[in-house]
Amino acid sequence: MNLVLVAPDELDAQGFVHLHGRRAEHLVRVLGAARGTRLRVGVVRGATGIGEVVRNESGAVTVAVRLEGTAPPPPSVSLVLGLPRPKALSRLLGAVASMGVARIDIVNAWRVDKSYFDSPRLDAGTLAEAIWLGCEQGMTTWLPEVAVFRRFTDLLPRLAASPAGGCRLVAHPRASRLLEGAPTAALDVPTVLALGPDGGWIDGEVAALAEQGFVPVSLGPWVLRTEIAAPIALAELALLRRLRSAREGASPPFEARFD
Amino acid sequence: MNLVLVAPDELDAQGFVHLHGRRAEHLVRVLGAARGTRLRVGVVRGATGIGEVVRNESGAVTVAVRLEGTAPPPPSVSLVLGLPRPKALSRLLGAVASMGVARIDIVNAWRVDKSYFDSPRLDAGTLAEAIWLGCEQGMTTWLPEVAVFRRFTDLLPRLAASPAGGCRLVAHPRASRLLEGAPTAALDVPTVLALGPDGGWIDGEVAALAEQGFVPVSLGPWVLRTEIAAPIALAELALLRRLRSAREGASPPFEARFD
Repeated sequence: MNLVLVAPDELDAQGFVHLHGRRAEHLVRVLGAARGTRLRVGVVRGATGIGEVVRNESGAVTVAVRLEGTAPPPPSVSLVLGLPRPKALSRLLGAVASMGVARIDIVNAWRVDKSYFDSPRLDAGTLAEAIWLGCEQGMTTWLPEVAVFRRFTDLLPRLAASPAGGCRLVAHPRASRLLEGAPTAALDVPTVLALGPDGGWIDGEVAALAEQGFVPVSLGPWVLRTEIAAPIALAELALLRRLRSAREGASPPFEARFD
Repeated sequence: MNLVLVAPDELDAQGFVHLHGRRAEHLVRVLGAARGTRLRVGVVRGATGIGEVVRNESGAVTVAVRLEGTAPPPPSVSLVLGLPRPKALSRLLGAVASMGVARIDIVNAWRVDKSYFDSPRLDAGTLAEAIWLGCEQGMTTWLPEVAVFRRFTDLLPRLAASPAGGCRLVAHPRASRLLEGAPTAALDVPTVLALGPDGGWIDGEVAALAEQGFVPVSLGPWVLRTEIAAPIALAELALLRRLRSAREGASPPFEARFD
C-alpha cells in the first residue's frame, strides 16, 4: 500500500479519516504505522496529500489528512479486455489500475472458456477490490469504472453510443500495422484500447470492432498473455505520447517525424 | 503451449521426437492432439518448424519434425532482477522468457525480504521450468540462462568481468532521466537492464550499478511491481529500437524524391 486510498465520504469535515478492517490492519501490521507515522493519502478521483496517524486503538486507525492541490487529470485511456483466466484477472485489473485507466470493459469473446464467467472473481465486489488494491499500489486516485459484458455483441451498442473521435485501437498479433503506425496512437486524445483474451480475438471480432472505428495494431513481435499485453500496451502508448510531446516541445530536430 | 519446445538431443537423426510426461499430456488433453495433428515445434536455441503427430500411445507422443531455416538471432537484452515475491517470480520469469531475453540474473537487494530466498521456487528445476513454459507460450527457442545471487555484491564482479560497451540501464522511479533519454537505449546493441525488487533499489545499489556503467532511467510516471516493470521495460526498449530503425530506414522527411 503505497497510497492510503479513501472514499470522499470517509474524510470528515475536520480532515480526519477513521480506518477499520483491511486498511487499518495493513497500516499497523505490514507498514508498522503508529501514532505520528506519516503516510501518503489520496481521495478517490481527487487529490493526494499527507496523512498523519493520530490514533491507533483496538484495530481502528485515525489519520489526519492534509490534501495538496487539486486532483490530477483523469486518465485518457480506457480498456476493453477479453476475459482472461479468472486467476489472472485480478492481477491484470490491479496492474492496469495501478497505471491509471479511465474505464475497463471486460467482455466475452470466442476464445474465452465459458466456465470463466462462473468464477466468483467476476463478482462486483471482487473486481472492485482488485482495482482498489491496484490504485493503492500505483498511487493513483483514478479508480476506473468496470463493467462486465457476458456477450460480445452487448458491448457494441455501448461503443457505438460513445462519442466519436479520439483513438480506438484493437491489439491483434497478426495486424499488418504496428502500434506506432496508427496515426492517432501518439496523440493525447481519449483512447480505447481493445485487447483480446489469451489466444486473441477471432477475425469476426476484429471486424466488428473495426466497424466501431478500431484500428488493428500489433504491439510487437511477441505472443503475449492478456495480463502482460495490457500493461505493455499502456506503456507503449504512453511512450509514443511522451516522444511526441518531447518533439513538439523541443525545437524541431532534423530527424523530425516518426509518424 | 503455442510451441512444442524440445532439447537438441531429444530430436533423433530421423527427425522424430518422442515425448512423455507433461508435454505429451498437454498435447493430448489440452490441445486434443491425435495422429495427424500438426504442431509448431522448436529446438532450444535453434530453429522452429512443423511437427506432425505420428503416434499417440499409452501416454507417449511421437512427432515427426521438419525444421525450417536456421535459428532466429539471439535476444540482445539481459536482465538483472531484484528478487520479487516468490509467487510472482515464476510468472515474471515466464513473461520475460516469452518475450525473448538472453540471460536473467536474480539478485538479492536491500528491499528483498530475506525469507524469499528460502522459497522452493528458487530451486534450479523450478526456475528452469518457469522459463521453459514461458518460451513455449511466447514461441521463442531462446531459453535464457539463469543465475541466482544471494548477495548483491556477488553480482558486481560478474558485471565488471563482462565485455564493456553496449547499453546498461538501471530502472529507478526517481531517476531524472526517462528511458528514451538514455543515449544508448534506442541502439540495437547488447543490453543489460537492471530492475529492482518491489520497492526498488536503494541509492547505494543504484550507485554500485552506476559504477559498472548502468545509467539510471525511469520507465514512466508509474509505481510498478517488478513483475510488470520487467515486461514493460522490454517493450519500451523494443519500441524505441523499432522507431529508430524505421527512422533510419525511411527516406529523410521534407525531401521530395522522385526516383
